[in-house]
Order: sequence, then C-alpha cells, then structure tokens
Amino acid sequence: MNFAIVRYIIGFILQFEAAFMLLPGLVGICYGEVKEAIIYFLIALLCLICGFLLRMKRPKQMQLFTREGFASVALSWLIMSFFGALPFVITGEIPHFIDALFETISGFTTTGASILSDVEALSHTSLFWRSFTHWIGGMGVFMFIMAILPMMGGSTMNLMKAESPGPSVNKLVPRVKDTAKILYQLYIGITVLEVLVLCLCGMPIFDALTTTFGTVGTGGFGIYNDSIGGYSPLIQIVITVFMILSGVNYMVYFYLLSRHFKEAFSIEEVRWYFLIILGSIAIIVWDCHSLYSSLSDNLRHAAFQVGSIITTSGFSTVDFNAWPQLSKTVLIILMFVGACAGSTGGGIKVSRIVILFKAFQKELSMMIHPRMIKKIKMDGHIIPHETLRSTNVFMSVYFLILFLSILLIGIDEYDFTTNFTAVAATLNNIGPGLELVGPTQNFSLFSPFSKCVLMFDMLAGRLELFPMLIILRPACWKKY
Amino acid sequence: MNFAIVRYIIGFILQFEAAFMLLPGLVGICYGEVKEAIIYFLIALLCLICGFLLRMKRPKQMQLFTREGFASVALSWLIMSFFGALPFVITGEIPHFIDALFETISGFTTTGASILSDVEALSHTSLFWRSFTHWIGGMGVFMFIMAILPMMGGSTMNLMKAESPGPSVNKLVPRVKDTAKILYQLYIGITVLEVLVLCLCGMPIFDALTTTFGTVGTGGFGIYNDSIGGYSPLIQIVITVFMILSGVNYMVYFYLLSRHFKEAFSIEEVRWYFLIILGSIAIIVWDCHSLYSSLSDNLRHAAFQVGSIITTSGFSTVDFNAWPQLSKTVLIILMFVGACAGSTGGGIKVSRIVILFKAFQKELSMMIHPRMIKKIKMDGHIIPHETLRSTNVFMSVYFLILFLSILLIGIDEYDFTTNFTAVAATLNNIGPGLELVGPTQNFSLFSPFSKCVLMFDMLAGRLELFPMLIILRPACWKKY
Repeated sequence: MNFAIVRYIIGFILQFEAAFMLLPGLVGICYGEVKEAIIYFLIALLCLICGFLLRMKRPKQMQLFTREGFASVALSWLIMSFFGALPFVITGEIPHFIDALFETISGFTTTGASILSDVEALSHTSLFWRSFTHWIGGMGVFMFIMAILPMMGGSTMNLMKAESPGPSVNKLVPRVKDTAKILYQLYIGITVLEVLVLCLCGMPIFDALTTTFGTVGTGGFGIYNDSIGGYSPLIQIVITVFMILSGVNYMVYFYLLSRHFKEAFSIEEVRWYFLIILGSIAIIVWDCHSLYSSLSDNLRHAAFQVGSIITTSGFSTVDFNAWPQLSKTVLIILMFVGACAGSTGGGIKVSRIVILFKAFQKELSMMIHPRMIKKIKMDGHIIPHETLRSTNVFMSVYFLILFLSILLIGIDEYDFTTNFTAVAATLNNIGPGLELVGPTQNFSLFSPFSKCVLMFDMLAGRLELFPMLIILRPACWKKY
Repeated sequence: MNFAIVRYIIGFILQFEAAFMLLPGLVGICYGEVKEAIIYFLIALLCLICGFLLRMKRPKQMQLFTREGFASVALSWLIMSFFGALPFVITGEIPHFIDALFETISGFTTTGASILSDVEALSHTSLFWRSFTHWIGGMGVFMFIMAILPMMGGSTMNLMKAESPGPSVNKLVPRVKDTAKILYQLYIGITVLEVLVLCLCGMPIFDALTTTFGTVGTGGFGIYNDSIGGYSPLIQIVITVFMILSGVNYMVYFYLLSRHFKEAFSIEEVRWYFLIILGSIAIIVWDCHSLYSSLSDNLRHAAFQVGSIITTSGFSTVDFNAWPQLSKTVLIILMFVGACAGSTGGGIKVSRIVILFKAFQKELSMMIHPRMIKKIKMDGHIIPHETLRSTNVFMSVYFLILFLSILLIGIDEYDFTTNFTAVAATLNNIGPGLELVGPTQNFSLFSPFSKCVLMFDMLAGRLELFPMLIILRPACWKKY
C-alpha cells in the first residue's frame, strides 16, 4: 500500500468538503441563522486545515493501482461523512454522533434513510446541508475533482472505477478527465433545469433547491415530515419525471446532446428500464384501484412511488406501507433492480440484470445445442469475459452482504419484513423500507450496532461493494 | 428432440412407480383398510399398463443428449407426481386434485410442505404412501433405475446430471451404474439402521418406517399434527442425528466404508456443513435461553430445528415461528444454505456457497495483487471453469425464480414474511416456513394459482432449476 498517496487524496477531499460546506453557511446567513452559519463556517475551516496538513508533503510515487484507488475512495467517503456529521452534533440538532453519522452517510450515499422523526425541526442551514450531501454524493466527489483538476495524470481510472456505478466504467470520451467534465456538466444542467421548472410550478426556491438535490442525486431526503405528499399534484408529477430521468444512463444525454439520436434510443439497458417502470406502474394501478377515487390519483401515486424506488431516490407521496401486498412486493423487487448503470441511482442496476438474464439464456441454449458457440452481446458488442465474471462475483457478494446484514440486525429482534427491507433499502441506497422503517417511520429504532451495520451497507451499496470490502482485508494494508 | 426416447423413459418410470405403489397397498391390507388397498393396487395396475404402452415400441436411437436427459427427468417427475396424486383423490382423502398434486410433488421433491390441516385423519395406507414418496424422491428415481437396469448403455450421465444435487456430479466410481448402485446401497443401509434404532427406542414400526423415509430422504412429512413434538426426547435426538447424517455428502460414507478415512474427513464442504450447524445451534441456544427451562431442552430443540432446516427436512419439535426474530433469521438463512452436494437434501448446497466465497476471495486478492495468478481450489483440486460458470448461472437463475415466485404469489395478498418463506421453503425443499406457513400451519390458504407456482418451485428446487426451465423453451421441443 502506498500510504502517502492515500493520505494525499484524503487531503484533497477534505479541502473540497470545506468548499462545499460554505454553501449551507451562506444559506444560514440568508435565513438569519447566525449560530448555525458560524458552526458550518468553522467546520469548513477545520476541514480546510486538516486537508492542508494531509497534503503538505507530496507523495514521491503518484501511481494509483486498484488497491490504492479503492482504498482511497472508501476511506475518503468515511472521513468525508465523519466531518459532514459534525455540524449536526455541534448545532445540537442531532445530538448523538452515531445518529448524525448515519444521517450524513445516508446523505452522501444518496440513500435518504433518516433517523429523524421530525425533519421540520431542523434549521434551514442543516436542511440545506443534509440535502446538498445527496447532490455531492450523487455523481460522486471524485468525479467532481477529476472534472476540475488534472490530479494524478493518467492513473485516475481506478478512482473512477471505485466510485461510478455499473458493471463496467462507461468512458464517454477517451480521457477520464473529459468524461468527468461532461458528466458534471450534464448533472449541473439537469439540476438547474429542475430547479427552474419547480420554481415555475410555484415551489419556493429553498424547497426547489433541496428537492432537486434529492431528485437528481436520487437521494430522497425530504424537508417535510410527509416527504413530497404536501405538494401539488403538478409538482409531484414534475418530480416523478426528473427522478426517472435521473435513473437513466447519462450516456443517453451525451448521445442526445451530440446528436447521435439512433445510439441514444438503442441502449438496451434504458429500454428495459422504461419497460420495467411501465410494467410496475400497471401492476400497482391494477392492485390499488380500490384505494384511490380517481384513476389519475392512482396513476400519479403509482408512478411517483415506482419512479422513487427504482431510481433508489426514496421520496414518497403516500404511505406505501399501507398498500396491498402485491404492490408492496413490486416495490421490494424494484428496490433490488435499481436504476441504470452510469446514472446516479443505486441497486443492482438494470444492466447487470440484463447481463445475467442473457447468461442464463445462453446456458439454456447450450444445453439444447451443445455444440453451438454463442457470445453474449449487449448493444451489439460482445460482453467481455471480465465484465461477466465481475458481475457474477458482484451478485454473490451482494447476496452474501444482504443475508449477513439481515442476520446481524436480527439481534434487535424486530420483525423479518422490517429487517429485510431495512437492509434492502440501505444496501440499495433507497431510504424507506416497509413496516417499522416504512415511509412514515424512520431508522431511529435500531440499536447503535445495527445502525453501524446499515451504515456499512449504505457505503457498500454506493461504492458497489468492493472498495468497502478491500479495506477490511489486512493484505490491503501491507507495505510494498 | 428425440421424442421416442423421452416416451420410452417415461414408460420405464411409470412401471417402477407401479411397483412402488404395491407397498402402500400391502400396508393397507395389514391395517385392514381394504378399500384404500384396492385403490392403490388398481392405480398401480394403471401405471403398469400406461408404462407398458409407452414402452411398446423401442426407440431406434438410444443416445441421450443433455436436452433429452433433462426433459425426460423433468417430465417423468411431473407425470410420476400426477399418478402419485390419484390415490389421494380417489380415496377422497384429498378431494381437490390441485391439493393432491401439491402434496405428492411435495412428497417426491422431499419438500414436506402440506396442504392438510389434519394429517392424522389420513388412512395408514395413504400416510405410508405420502412418506414413501420422500424415500423415492430422496435419492432419486432415475438413480434407482440406473442402479438396477443397464438402461441405455453409456449415455445415462445426462439423467444423473439432471437428478443428482450439487454443482457437479460426483461419480464415486468410473461407471455411472456402479455409482448409482453404491449410493442406493448406502441409502438403504442408513434407512434400515434408522428404522432399527427408532424401534429400539420404543417407536412403533409404522411410525419408525414413515419417520425414517422422511429423515433419510430429508422430506419432512410427519404422521402427527405436531410433527415430531409428541415423541420422547430420546427419539427426537435420534432423528436429529439421522437428519444431519442424511445431509452429508454420501461420498463421506463411501470413503469411510472403503477405509479411506483421511479422504473422508478432509472434504471441505462437509467441514463447513458441520461448522455452520454448530454455529447456528450456538446462536439459537443463546437467543432462546429464556424460552426453555433447562439447557438440555434448549439444546435439543435448537439442534433439532437447525438439523431439520439445514438438511431441508422440515420436521419440527416446537413451533419455531414463536421463537425470537434472531433465531428465526438464522433458520431463514439456513433454508437457503441447504445441505451438502451429493446428499438427499436441497437448498443452494454448502459446496456452491464455499465455491462462491472462494471466487469472491480470489477477486479481492486480485484487486490487491493484480499480477497474481490464482486458481480456486476445493479439496486440493482446481475447480474447473465449467463448474464455476454453472454455479454462477445457477445463483442468478435461483434468485430470479425466488423473486418472481414471491411476486406471483403476492397476488394472494398475504404478508411478505409468509410469501418469502413460503417460496424459500418450497424452492429449497424444506416444508414449513414462517407466519401463515409456519410449522403449526399449512399451505392450504394459497389460491390454486399460487399452489401451481409453489409446485413449480418444488420441482425446480429438487431438480436444480435447469430441467424444469429447459422444458419451458420451445426450442427444446424442435425435431432434429
């Protein structure tokens, strides 16, 4: 392990976090929350100093191997969450550190699972920071840095691999830096567009900003206790559309903007994504027809909840825990499916499921025609053996972590549905689950130990398992 | 598809089923249940005639490819269950055919999930047949035929592949026929031993026979409404031991009898199997300490339930649905783990889990040392790429069927824990689940549609997915 470079990278991250924290400070000043603003500014200063100290000595060797890349990303996310949790504790809004850390990790990983029973009691400053962590974590903080700085020459691919979601890294253009730049431009573009549309629909600017952070980052922290339920149907529809758009592989937008329309509409994953959404809405509308007086209400709530869960946002307009079992089962399955690779959403990802399905089809065909030679293709390209192998290993590890986590939080002795959906909702970065962690409930009921397990799950889910697992292996920390 | 050979094989199976059905007929005569005995004899005659008609014309081409092998096994199991269900309907003991079919498939697949609320109301004849199906299905009917008849020369490997559990077929000796013979000798040996021990412990001979069928076949149909709960602690301990022994890879017994003690004790899978059992018992004993007055009671019930679930038998001595959540979670996870490959138990199998765990370890090591060349080994041998690939595909398809089944039976609108454990208990061939399908409940609450889904799951679980999936593909039925 090249410790120097890991230290150096963490320093970078802390300095950026300092910059990010100025924003909630400014919001605090606007709202006259002087005490909160000062606390945020002071912690920003602390981050800046720590970052400066860590970056004082430049490492001799700047090469980043997979090990260093994965370890730096995992540690950075942990440390970033640690400092991000400090304002909540110091302002006294979330007095217990474990709770504050849970809330911050939930924010950065775009999970949106909360331990707060009364969100509305928070200051504007903290509400803003809480939602802003979604935006930072959505596209990824390393991606942001790569887009701005020529950090370590050509070896940043391993940082991108650790932070960007999906079975393989989609480089839109040959250079990592340019890819990161384009992705962030698109990300900012969608953010600005949603804020504008929401303001036009009559949402106050503060609400529009925080809700947009939660939507485009597919996070799901609301600023009201009833999440999105109190807004007008029009606003709910706008949020539905932007949630679903945020779960689409960003390659589509890149193709659209570069006028490659045919390529944009031929991405298999995205087609499946929309098919799954439409199918799920249809089942829920049919299943919930007796709950809502009008078809339009039924459609709106079904589409909102489906969009919210498949993109792993986790906003809600109704208490879907009160829906009939079939609809709840659809939502549970959508939790696992997740959004597209190369989006800001979590979960297993549609592309992985399509790959696995094709591998299964191939296996059956090979049993019927043993001498056939068939390669699995996606979007017209043969899927490399490497991608197939890593997808398979991902799935095994994913279910291993899922069941192990359910076992560990079982110690709290809550019912199986609560435990199962709590783990599913954190590992897939959704937010609310069912029963005791349903949309009208929160995660405060769990013991500190279970909260730690769920925090691990959130980070493992956001970073796609391996970065968080590699730092647990002693072999990773051996010197060269 | 070579239809002639499939027809021919099904004919064989029906003739064997006729022979098997004579036994409950004889039991009926012993107990003076003349009506029932006659019905069983008549249906045996019907099977014999149908089998004779199907086997009248010998196929020209006797070669069995994977496609024919898998399709014959899947169809044979379906048809065998169809005829096996007839006595229940005709005697009027299970009037609805879907229910009778469910009970019979549950028997042959060694699941032990019942739709009967009062088992004790059945005649001795039907109770015997019901338990005897476990014994037939445990080691497998094709294995039985192969052990006796030189059926199709050298191409029977594809039948064995379809019916024997585990990631790869363990041929104990080079010839398939000899392997089948040895396996059945061991199977009969263990059966006789358990019957003798149970009789010595004071169990009536009828109870000893039926319980043994359920134990060595890892089935789990009891002949009393409280399953094994009414027997003495000594008998419960004996059954625990035989259940756990029945979940061991039969290779161990083969090695032991051929005096290869070192090989017998060095099988990795079996070591893990015992470690998992001990660990699970320890957790449950700790978790349930307040439920039982004495440690010995606690230990006995924990060991019984753990042995029953991991070997996928499904007997019970207590209502484990009333246990605390952590213990229930342990049982749910054991449902998925399942027994050893090459045993009569179901589930994912310990060896598959060990293989996946090693693949994951290898992946992590490769991230830390990218230039390392490492092969995954088990019992000192390198695991062939083929086995690894098929294990991965198995896992994907397994979870696909699991979630799809949960979705489909969700239409009945029962709670998630019921649905989840109902599918887990059928797909893994266990029997009872939790909540509404807990050990004191039964599967009669489900709609006929859901029962069909669960029947598919039982067969898919017993035949390890692919034989049941291949017959659903139109390409499988194309003529050469």
